[in-house]
Amino acid sequence: MNEVKVGIIGFGTVGAGVASCLLANGDVIASRAGLRVELAKIADLDMESDRGVEVPEGILTTDSDALIEECDVVVELVGGLGVARELILKALEKGKPVVTANKALLAERGDELFSTAEKFGTDIYYEASVAGGIPVVKALREGLVGNRVGKIVGILNGTCNYILTRMEAENADFDTVLAEAGRLGYAEADPSLDIDGVDTAHKIAIMASLAYGEWFGMEPVSVEGIRGIDLLDLKFALELGYRIKLLGIADSENGSVSMRVHPALVPLGTMLADVAGVFNGVLVKGDYVDEVFFHGRGAGRDATASAVVADIVDVALNLKFGSHSRVPAFRVGRQFAEVAPMERTRCRYYTRMQVVDRPGVVAAVSAVLGKYGISISSILQKEGQSADNVSLIIVTHESLEADMSKAIVEIEALDKVRGGIKLFRIED
Amino acid sequence: MNEVKVGIIGFGTVGAGVASCLLANGDVIASRAGLRVELAKIADLDMESDRGVEVPEGILTTDSDALIEECDVVVELVGGLGVARELILKALEKGKPVVTANKALLAERGDELFSTAEKFGTDIYYEASVAGGIPVVKALREGLVGNRVGKIVGILNGTCNYILTRMEAENADFDTVLAEAGRLGYAEADPSLDIDGVDTAHKIAIMASLAYGEWFGMEPVSVEGIRGIDLLDLKFALELGYRIKLLGIADSENGSVSMRVHPALVPLGTMLADVAGVFNGVLVKGDYVDEVFFHGRGAGRDATASAVVADIVDVALNLKFGSHSRVPAFRVGRQFAEVAPMERTRCRYYTRMQVVDRPGVVAAVSAVLGKYGISISSILQKEGQSADNVSLIIVTHESLEADMSKAIVEIEALDKVRGGIKLFRIED
Repeated sequence: MNEVKVGIIGFGTVGAGVASCLLANGDVIASRAGLRVELAKIADLDMESDRGVEVPEGILTTDSDALIEECDVVVELVGGLGVARELILKALEKGKPVVTANKALLAERGDELFSTAEKFGTDIYYEASVAGGIPVVKALREGLVGNRVGKIVGILNGTCNYILTRMEAENADFDTVLAEAGRLGYAEADPSLDIDGVDTAHKIAIMASLAYGEWFGMEPVSVEGIRGIDLLDLKFALELGYRIKLLGIADSENGSVSMRVHPALVPLGTMLADVAGVFNGVLVKGDYVDEVFFHGRGAGRDATASAVVADIVDVALNLKFGSHSRVPAFRVGRQFAEVAPMERTRCRYYTRMQVVDRPGVVAAVSAVLGKYGISISSILQKEGQSADNVSLIIVTHESLEADMSKAIVEIEALDKVRGGIKLFRIED
Repeated sequence: MNEVKVGIIGFGTVGAGVASCLLANGDVIASRAGLRVELAKIADLDMESDRGVEVPEGILTTDSDALIEECDVVVELVGGLGVARELILKALEKGKPVVTANKALLAERGDELFSTAEKFGTDIYYEASVAGGIPVVKALREGLVGNRVGKIVGILNGTCNYILTRMEAENADFDTVLAEAGRLGYAEADPSLDIDGVDTAHKIAIMASLAYGEWFGMEPVSVEGIRGIDLLDLKFALELGYRIKLLGIADSENGSVSMRVHPALVPLGTMLADVAGVFNGVLVKGDYVDEVFFHGRGAGRDATASAVVADIVDVALNLKFGSHSRVPAFRVGRQFAEVAPMERTRCRYYTRMQVVDRPGVVAAVSAVLGKYGISISSILQKEGQSADNVSLIIVTHESLEADMSKAIVEIEALDKVRGGIKLFRIED
């Protein structure tokens, strides 16, 4: 098979990008891959809108069933958990390999999709589901195949990173920047999937599964977003030599693995701290390769299309050589005895509390921390507008999340502490 | 074929790393790749030295011919252009796929090696030849397969980057830091391959061929190293907002391609400027993916082993599925009408000259630049030890290399200029 017919279901932004890429770069792709990838069909209910890409006549259809029947490779770019799932299952059940960028569906229903692909002897590929155009799925599956992966730390959501970058650059608060991001098209009308960390969680769940070889899904991922992050903390963090980023983290230790999404302080001068605006960055630590860092566009029509097209070529080559599941998706059976809950996480902490500026405050707070074996690395007390409300920032040495949580509850109850304690983990 | 016998020729540092990785992570590799990679033989003339890795009895041999006969995959880690070439050709001629980290041999004799592999229906893989553990060869061949690559800019030699980093950090001159690097094992006894830019040229030649699909070899690569770089210029560059790095650059424009290695000013705050010490960084610009940046260890036992093992798995999978040359190496026929010579390069320039501090110097220098249509972006004149010898730094707008070369010759002949003009290109 030296020509492969590709059908795209969903002619939205990314669909238009993929069509554009296949049409514009078909010659390069053919010479690199040794086969022709033909854009055969595009299915969408909307046959009218201008997508900014000129497709050959007769390609557009509303009939996705016929597309699945006719094409060798099915590209699902509908999005969401409903129709997309049905279309993917339908294609897989007919033995047609599927390429998708649908991180939400993968993270929520990966089990079903991967087992269906296996059952019907075909492939599901999903490079575009994580970090847009950056080929990090391929790196984890193939380029770093010889490594036990210790840790993955990623900035995986462009909307959140854009908001945090603008807040710092413009001294603006969260709500102002979020509203601006919405106007500029960098945030969805309903931004909750992004800013509450769910989108990042989808991506870290996929990467953790790739790294550790076992399909985890979303359930074990601990998720905190950036809603209501205070400009004050961004500024104090900078003063201490850190920048606040929303991180997706997967970590394996002593036979257990943890997956979490939360804002964290990242040291200035590191590559992760330098990921700005809508960009994505992913750090992978393997036992042989050590740390490898990837940076690029995590979203957008063309960058996402680049990843989708790479997958199309891979599944087309699998068809050509009869090598479906060339790289098996996930390990059978569990590698990890358990998924470690958030309470077992150990890290350093930044905590800010608004306190009454009276003698004995620091002593009282320190006593609570000491009770839980949490030792203090540095203290910063800032003058406030009044002696009734000053910021006290405490940075701890490495401590256990469970201890820190208990200490925070007790500190909040102290009468000189005005409540609403802010707590951020530090990712060194 | 669900088990593949691997033979390593050359039990030096990297050979020991590969053996260690295959032995320690064989289970992970097997579960990820769906096949077992068995370390069957290691050939080396030295059967005695301790390499810090315990290999099963009976594996070590001095007989590389028997190894080639017995193994399914041959890993060449001898290095150099002589024996290594013969061994690779011997293996390929027997239809055995070869994995190598030998950038010098590839860059110098790639034509012969690739055509032999093709003739005998087998593969030659070489991820470890560029940027150590960073999976950038795979990214160029597969992950970015849908893109026309515009430009590649890489920091590809850890020794040079270490030297430049230490010079800046310690205010030390080139010779001092080179000597120290030698003592610490970061520079070879004969460091010329590194510091004269040849090693970087090998790597950029390989990457350019991958990106543009045509085997270029070393001949069209313009090469300047870092020998004799002046601490003074590192300092002035910093003052102007740049850091000097040794870059390998491949660029395609209007149907021609240029390949060059030279020190260049890179703007502070960019990822490339932040590549420090022995690390490597590679920026790839594709027409769909935009800029993707990769960072990691470019050398060292374990990082290189990570890349070699990834290749071993890829060729093993090709054996399993009968998919040799799954991704063809290079395009047949030339994509580019021509290779553009260095004189056709356009960029901004930093130039420093030592001048006599008298009226009319700047006017005279500007007049020469003006004659060649080179316009000045900024001028910095520093006080010197005496009025007879002050530093005049001129930064130009984008200009043509051919014009700049001619201007420099004329400026050097001016009687108020003391000669030895330093010229660096700026990579914005």
